[in-house]
Amino acid sequence: MQRHTVITPIRVLYSDVDQMKWANHGAYHRWFEIGRAEYMRKHGLPYKSLEEMGYFMPVTELYCKFLKPIKYDDLLRIASWPSSVKKASMRFEYKLLNEREEIMATGFTHHVCLDRSGRIVRMPERLKEILEV
Amino acid sequence: MQRHTVITPIRVLYSDVDQMKWANHGAYHRWFEIGRAEYMRKHGLPYKSLEEMGYFMPVTELYCKFLKPIKYDDLLRIASWPSSVKKASMRFEYKLLNEREEIMATGFTHHVCLDRSGRIVRMPERLKEILEV
Amino acid sequence: MQRHTVITPIRVLYSDVDQMKWANHGAYHRWFEIGRAEYMRKHGLPYKSLEEMGYFMPVTELYCKFLKPIKYDDLLRIASWPSSVKKASMRFEYKLLNEREEIMATGFTHHVCLDRSGRIVRMPERLKEILEV
Amino acid sequence: MQRHTVITPIRVLYSDVDQMKWANHGAYHRWFEIGRAEYMRKHGLPYKSLEEMGYFMPVTELYCKFLKPIKYDDLLRIASWPSSVKKASMRFEYKLLNEREEIMATGFTHHVCLDRSGRIVRMPERLKEILEV
Repeated sequence: MQRHTVITPIRVLYSDVDQMKWANHGAYHRWFEIGRAEYMRKHGLPYKSLEEMGYFMPVTELYCKFLKPIKYDDLLRIASWPSSVKKASMRFEYKLLNEREEIMATGFTHHVCLDRSGRIVRMPERLKEILEV
Repeated sequence: MQRHTVITPIRVLYSDVDQMKWANHGAYHRWFEIGRAEYMRKHGLPYKSLEEMGYFMPVTELYCKFLKPIKYDDLLRIASWPSSVKKASMRFEYKLLNEREEIMATGFTHHVCLDRSGRIVRMPERLKEILEV
Repeated sequence: MQRHTVITPIRVLYSDVDQMKWANHGAYHRWFEIGRAEYMRKHGLPYKSLEEMGYFMPVTELYCKFLKPIKYDDLLRIASWPSSVKKASMRFEYKLLNEREEIMATGFTHHVCLDRSGRIVRMPERLKEILEV
Repeated sequence: MQRHTVITPIRVLYSDVDQMKWANHGAYHRWFEIGRAEYMRKHGLPYKSLEEMGYFMPVTELYCKFLKPIKYDDLLRIASWPSSVKKASMRFEYKLLNEREEIMATGFTHHVCLDRSGRIVRMPERLKEILEV
């Protein structure tokens, strides 16, 4: 984790959990999205504003390592921080913690910066600033 | 059900099922969507083509009655047919059947017809025709 | 709404929104679940505790009326309160509000009370108390 | 891909697609699940039967590389095959193809074999056989 990591609470829903009584692996991408969105909001550039400026950050890679079973109604915290910030791409790293500070999962999403026409473009300064803190 | 009902197979996924070992109620809207989409496709007007013509059919009401528990890996069939077709709105009815022809759930979605600017408009003739068969 | 309504904030995710740029109708059941869960938690009986006591409250009916388009990153509030509380069944009502207090959607879920063997049973007193406030 | 790769059709739903008009990255895990489940079914050991024998194969890692945008109503095919089969773990590899045989995404899921008590155990012979074809 780095200095500007943002930590966001997550509550596990019934519909997140499968018949093993564990959170289904398909639920984690939402938690990563929540973490990433709150990172951007807390640093002053909500992803919605970025899109309004004409930039998009689609996910080009997703990785998750599921370390310990997460249960219904668990109150988790997701730690999110940027890494590998390049001219037109960046990575977000995630760490999912339970209430006893145990690491339940880790992962990353890789993104490219696109303009409205879908071309890869250099990311705007305002975005670069909040990612390189 | 009516004469032109379309029946589509559905396989229940692991991620559809919650810790009661039943399909979560949140999974059914996808099955309704599959049934409705296949009704339109089989009658010659895929919903995608309707959007390309400049019309949209957002869901304005959703109802589902969950009659019997649906389990992981069940092979269901969804019967879908239109009802209450008006100038600018329509309803789709759904019946979810298991392999022994038992009715597992019933429901409906109500839709309005919008143009690209989001105004309610009279539905195009081609749509009316496939709904009033 | 009734006296003991519980109001819970909801943030709309990117993955909740479809290509109409509106929250997909399939996203709402999660928000209803969040509202219902927080009602129970705030009244002292989290649903998780109810299951630990050996009782289950599966959804037997779901209804939602979609009144106005909900957009990405909207900050909503879901108002949730019980109604039609009977010996072995209950209804939860929901109202989804935006930041200007506009009603974006309304709906309900109907539930029956089951024991571990899946039989319909009279709901425990503790549950009845928090529903009949 | 290897000799015993199983190929399964996938239709992209409206609720899979986000406001970029691309399939949301959160939709792919379902397609991987479908591919993996059909691999096991076609080789004679549906995952459901494996659980009935007392074994579980939770996902311990998920990776996906999103190569080209997938659109609403696209008819994809998912190619799925096992790799890295060890005593108590295995990997499934996936390739997502569009109708013109373009590779839209690749990925893998890693799994461990557990018994009913949640301990890591040597996988049963029947499973090993269908993975080492």
